[in-house]
Amino acid sequence: MPELRKDPITDRWVIISASRGKRPSDYLTSVIKNQDTISPFAPGNEQETPPEIYALRPKNTRPNTAGWQLRVVPNKYPAVVMNGAYMENPEASTELFTALPGTGIHEVIIDMPEPDKRLEELTAGQITEVFKVFRQRLGEHRKEPRLKYALIFKNHGPAAGATLCHSHCQLIALPMVPAQVTAELSGSRQYYQKMKRCIFCDLIEQELKNEVRVVYDTEAVVALSSFAARVPYETWILPRAHFSHFETASDVLLEELSVVFKTVMQKINTALQKPSYNFVLHTGPLREEALVNYHWHLEILPRVANVAGFEWGTGMFINSISPEEAAVRLKKIVI
Amino acid sequence: MPELRKDPITDRWVIISASRGKRPSDYLTSVIKNQDTISPFAPGNEQETPPEIYALRPKNTRPNTAGWQLRVVPNKYPAVVMNGAYMENPEASTELFTALPGTGIHEVIIDMPEPDKRLEELTAGQITEVFKVFRQRLGEHRKEPRLKYALIFKNHGPAAGATLCHSHCQLIALPMVPAQVTAELSGSRQYYQKMKRCIFCDLIEQELKNEVRVVYDTEAVVALSSFAARVPYETWILPRAHFSHFETASDVLLEELSVVFKTVMQKINTALQKPSYNFVLHTGPLREEALVNYHWHLEILPRVANVAGFEWGTGMFINSISPEEAAVRLKKIVI
Repeated sequence: MPELRKDPITDRWVIISASRGKRPSDYLTSVIKNQDTISPFAPGNEQETPPEIYALRPKNTRPNTAGWQLRVVPNKYPAVVMNGAYMENPEASTELFTALPGTGIHEVIIDMPEPDKRLEELTAGQITEVFKVFRQRLGEHRKEPRLKYALIFKNHGPAAGATLCHSHCQLIALPMVPAQVTAELSGSRQYYQKMKRCIFCDLIEQELKNEVRVVYDTEAVVALSSFAARVPYETWILPRAHFSHFETASDVLLEELSVVFKTVMQKINTALQKPSYNFVLHTGPLREEALVNYHWHLEILPRVANVAGFEWGTGMFINSISPEEAAVRLKKIVI
Repeated sequence: MPELRKDPITDRWVIISASRGKRPSDYLTSVIKNQDTISPFAPGNEQETPPEIYALRPKNTRPNTAGWQLRVVPNKYPAVVMNGAYMENPEASTELFTALPGTGIHEVIIDMPEPDKRLEELTAGQITEVFKVFRQRLGEHRKEPRLKYALIFKNHGPAAGATLCHSHCQLIALPMVPAQVTAELSGSRQYYQKMKRCIFCDLIEQELKNEVRVVYDTEAVVALSSFAARVPYETWILPRAHFSHFETASDVLLEELSVVFKTVMQKINTALQKPSYNFVLHTGPLREEALVNYHWHLEILPRVANVAGFEWGTGMFINSISPEEAAVRLKKIVI
């Protein structure tokens, strides 16, 4: 029997419909990697990207040369750019239409030198270094008053919207707080006003008590199968303690986050045969200090089904595996 | 220079960033059709679907036998079902979590007997018959008071989320008005309160005057490149005259709609080499009578890029072709 579920934070509805998972398909989902391509992100090809902004590299190596472990570079094909005062279509802003210059920052975080590995295949120690760079970049962008929000995300694999195989994350900083974040902020603010507690803290407490949707947990970090998961095996990773901004995370917390991320992704890779996936880091807006109602977290979205007409037309999602079933399956997998 | 644009009706923001369109890709987007499969929707296979609810077939043929031009059948793998009072996870509804039975109707509209043709490859007369069936189904579902909204959409091709090759549309009727429709309704209501005019009527008038985003138009119907297009070549088809509900469309209007749909899709097929696509019919809620502020329309979304982490995390979209450029290209293509 299908079920309609509402995400407790954003009021986003999803349809959990297990029978949909049994559908046959005419399509062999084969996406072939173009064997001829050479990674523009690989060591030795540093001139293929704009000059690096930040890097993890031995002190005896020079910027934009090989030897690095991680590089942050401006996106060569940016979605937004700074100093965006000029507008191509000034006629676009009339009474009915609103258009603004696409001001912002678009960075690529090349998270490893290897051109064909997945982030979760690095050691937990190496993954910790990547998360520390996230923290550093967010801290950096807090200094620019025109930027209101910075989103860090990963597109891995073609079904997740990646165009390049070489593992990387992206950071897009915007002159506005985007709708999805606003929905989380306002939902959690409403809850706080009523309950005087953070909704994420309550969620974690309740889920740990219920157990049915807990995928994995450590002393400081918990991974949950999202109650109103939009896609099969959607998993959220949250710190148990209350922090609104990822920038404030301690080294110790990031070390645990890495272990949990690596473990959860290995479980997902086993369950879904190394799927394409997105992750999105939800953190407090750049211009806000610590918030009592908000709680940073990492949302992992395996991409085994495509967004279709129903989702475009309604803003709702149809998920063919119940979050409880996904949790059971992931828990069973021994890493 | 990238630009941030706001959809005038829903306040949905998009980033128009032409430079993104120049990105190289490691992936050969090859999706192979499984040659072995036999269409469960093809004539002769009527027993593969649940019994038909409605059909266009000669009077001398019996239900669920060959000879039909169009069949409406219940979805064999429904996202929602009627009589959904029972809940699998009653524990799911606690203070923090809201879950409802997935009540609703999920129909498949098999819009042709041919297993490997696109809807726009039918004659305009045949497409008109399909649109008349949309009208009939919406009229039918208005009779069921538990249903609040019915969405008709098409997923064509694997990148659009289709699992079967055989052309078909779907109808999902829900016990609620979904978020995307609510956003359109409330945006257009606000505009009406201020201006005493329908925002869609004003949009059509302004766009026809500006011309830059008009893709094609006839006496009664206009096709526009959406000002805040979420995907490359997103095109909206609207009746010029004000109607909130598709159910009230006249035969003459549907005939013109078919011509415009066929023409626009042929142009898109030429520009993007027969892409996967979704269309979504936006119409007034089932429980509402004619609305002064709302205006039905068909949104066509070619699917050449995948939804990625940025979209999941922000609710915003990055579009790599400006809507004006898309309109110019589509207008140039002679059909």
